[in-house]
Amino acid sequence: MDITHIEEAYKRLKEIANVTPVSTSKALNELKSASIYLKCENFQRTGSFKFRGAYNAVFLLSPKERARGVIAHSSGNHAQALALAARLFSISCVVVMPSNSSEVKIHAAREYGAEVVMCKPTLEDRIRTTEEIIANSGYKIIHPYDNDDVIAGAGTGVYELIDEVKELDYIFCPIGGGGLISGTSIAAKGMLPNIKVIGVEPKLANDAYLSFTTGKLVPNVNTDTIADGLRTSLSQKTFDIIRENVDDIVLVSEEEIVGAMRFIWEELKFVLEPSGAVSLAGLLKGAVDVKGKRVGVILSGGNVDLEGFFKKYISDKCIG
Amino acid sequence: MDITHIEEAYKRLKEIANVTPVSTSKALNELKSASIYLKCENFQRTGSFKFRGAYNAVFLLSPKERARGVIAHSSGNHAQALALAARLFSISCVVVMPSNSSEVKIHAAREYGAEVVMCKPTLEDRIRTTEEIIANSGYKIIHPYDNDDVIAGAGTGVYELIDEVKELDYIFCPIGGGGLISGTSIAAKGMLPNIKVIGVEPKLANDAYLSFTTGKLVPNVNTDTIADGLRTSLSQKTFDIIRENVDDIVLVSEEEIVGAMRFIWEELKFVLEPSGAVSLAGLLKGAVDVKGKRVGVILSGGNVDLEGFFKKYISDKCIG
Repeated sequence: MDITHIEEAYKRLKEIANVTPVSTSKALNELKSASIYLKCENFQRTGSFKFRGAYNAVFLLSPKERARGVIAHSSGNHAQALALAARLFSISCVVVMPSNSSEVKIHAAREYGAEVVMCKPTLEDRIRTTEEIIANSGYKIIHPYDNDDVIAGAGTGVYELIDEVKELDYIFCPIGGGGLISGTSIAAKGMLPNIKVIGVEPKLANDAYLSFTTGKLVPNVNTDTIADGLRTSLSQKTFDIIRENVDDIVLVSEEEIVGAMRFIWEELKFVLEPSGAVSLAGLLKGAVDVKGKRVGVILSGGNVDLEGFFKKYISDKCIG
Repeated sequence: MDITHIEEAYKRLKEIANVTPVSTSKALNELKSASIYLKCENFQRTGSFKFRGAYNAVFLLSPKERARGVIAHSSGNHAQALALAARLFSISCVVVMPSNSSEVKIHAAREYGAEVVMCKPTLEDRIRTTEEIIANSGYKIIHPYDNDDVIAGAGTGVYELIDEVKELDYIFCPIGGGGLISGTSIAAKGMLPNIKVIGVEPKLANDAYLSFTTGKLVPNVNTDTIADGLRTSLSQKTFDIIRENVDDIVLVSEEEIVGAMRFIWEELKFVLEPSGAVSLAGLLKGAVDVKGKRVGVILSGGNVDLEGFFKKYISDKCIG
């Protein structure tokens, strides 16, 4: 896969996806003595970058495949993204979700028109349930990252960023299953051959770091990182792209993730989910010297469950 | 005061203040069967519309007055706004803050370069302390709303909104001391004589509603509304402008305010403070029929104290 796949995907997406804003902050630029450009995919449709890949993949199905409908197992942003993509093509979508998924996320997938099928909260049962439905119905599975069309769609975010800001010396990108950084690194190096691609990963879900440093694909064991979108492990496909394209991987602690999330909420007044703040946490940590440089940062999503916050807010502050 | 004052203020401000984004939401438009334009003053410098008025007022001081420095008593957004305006003119700024002000707000005023003087948490002591400092130092007081130049600056937000979206049938605006709605109504009716100006006020701080309906200035008694920016009472000046220009005043409950704040955080992924969400709460309530109309909504600020949220967030979710 190369930059031409991403250009093609962008032609499809630019009228359908949001052109997400690029935010800058005087405070952040002063803090890092650099020019920082934040690509705000929390403002993307369905609240994360995932819509780009899901839409591109559904678009590229053959008409016959598409007509049968699509399926994914996901408790998170890919479910919502696929549900909306399916709705835009007026086709069916089934999302298999573990029984411990939050009410908010189940509700969101249904709101976008997906049929939600519950399963036990194990990877085995997710796969078994999904395969049963496919056997009975012929739905086409859209994997959240182990899929070239999803990767190409994911790469359109940085494509749009570089198209707007032109030169960049660095791009910081979170790593979960590796789909976003695969598309991002292919697009970024295709447009700017000298750009450095820095992956950022939670310490508690450091499979990409271990794989990258040992040269051998090492999956995550169970992890509970606050960055719930990054608990998945690389696939062979995304690992190969990362080995080829990524210049370094930085690890961040749970506290550093929350600190970055908070920085954005307080200084820039917008909402990120923990996974969406991981790349900024990697920049703020200072492990990479960016002084005097032009730096892009992919803020990947904003779907945080605010139920607890607003309940507490009301009970603490409302007396009326 | 008329639209020409606001045009003059806008000429001064447009290079200094942020041109704040106008957000739209498919979900919101569908909910209200209308075209809703949200003017996002939470993205203004210092996090609220207050910067517009403070800067305009400092600009219009005589060079001699300005050189002596400025002062205000405020525990909120006006303090930060005045501090930044003073810093941009390289003059001194003193902010008198009650001893029960939050650490975050004291810190913010200092960050923008103000000297913070603490006083007892009563209006009497705020005024006494402020007057003592003025007597000793000659600082010029900049009132947060009972000041024509502050009002003219505040009106530049809606001026910018109408300049961008052209036609509007309604504008929804929060009411605290009445400075924002005074400037907003003068600008809006000056540009679009048929526009309806709807003020929105918390039920727990309904002095403008009572004054508007009885025709007699009625101050707030002590109030603890969650919308801390709207606890102040009208002045004679802002009351006279409201009587002249405002078409209706809608009251909202504490729960309606939090509901509007939450709607924006979840659907649009940006942060509002309670006062900043009051105007949207008034629209969502449905007391004014806006079906098929073009509606502007001033979201006045985003300075909410997230300390408690992030502490709880970490303790609930972090295990690392």
